[in-house]
Amino acid sequence: MNVKGFAKRFDEVDAMPLEGGGFIRWLITHRDGAPTFSMRLINVPKGKSTPAHSHDYEHEIFIIEGEGTATIGNKNFKISKDFFLFIPGENYHTIKAETDMKMICIVPIKAAIDILGK
Amino acid sequence: MNVKGFAKRFDEVDAMPLEGGGFIRWLITHRDGAPTFSMRLINVPKGKSTPAHSHDYEHEIFIIEGEGTATIGNKNFKISKDFFLFIPGENYHTIKAETDMKMICIVPIKAAIDILGK
Repeated sequence: MNVKGFAKRFDEVDAMPLEGGGFIRWLITHRDGAPTFSMRLINVPKGKSTPAHSHDYEHEIFIIEGEGTATIGNKNFKISKDFFLFIPGENYHTIKAETDMKMICIVPIKAAIDILGK
Repeated sequence: MNVKGFAKRFDEVDAMPLEGGGFIRWLITHRDGAPTFSMRLINVPKGKSTPAHSHDYEHEIFIIEGEGTATIGNKNFKISKDFFLFIPGENYHTIKAETDMKMICIVPIKAAIDILGK
């Protein structure tokens, strides 16, 4: 692949539905030539949640808008704009939105390949 | 290391000056147990820039606030809130802020270890 740099607006990428009522845009993936990690933008409407699950890879999340409650393992955290979250692999996690939320969520490129395919 | 998940506000992390007039907060690093990539928050005041340089690792950036111009290789991009950037390794790059800017910038964990030390 001839890997090229770029700058785009998030809404140039299609949104896909997520279990729990949110939606996700895969902004940068292996298909762009990203070698190590993948950036996604997730929107969660008020009252909805991100998927409640656990997996072998980590998340790093930054909250851009909104308020909610994050569960990581057996701990709850009140979160809002300007919070960041580290969710290590094998930790159960979910985020419940108390207002409309918008967040960046990064995963290892291996997870992007597993979820999206090559 | 006993790796634990957490949620924190960005201003719980100290800001460090960046060449070009901005400042950086290393939000999540290997010191937290992050195995693959590191999340930083960068603020660039109006008229200042991120470092103008190139290196062997990639950046994935999301613009949270502000407007400016990104240079990637020999291309310029007008960017503002809600833009995302992929800067592959070995590409010269800089972002010049035309208003106060705030952005998330992710790097591979190897870069975090090289820059911060173990």
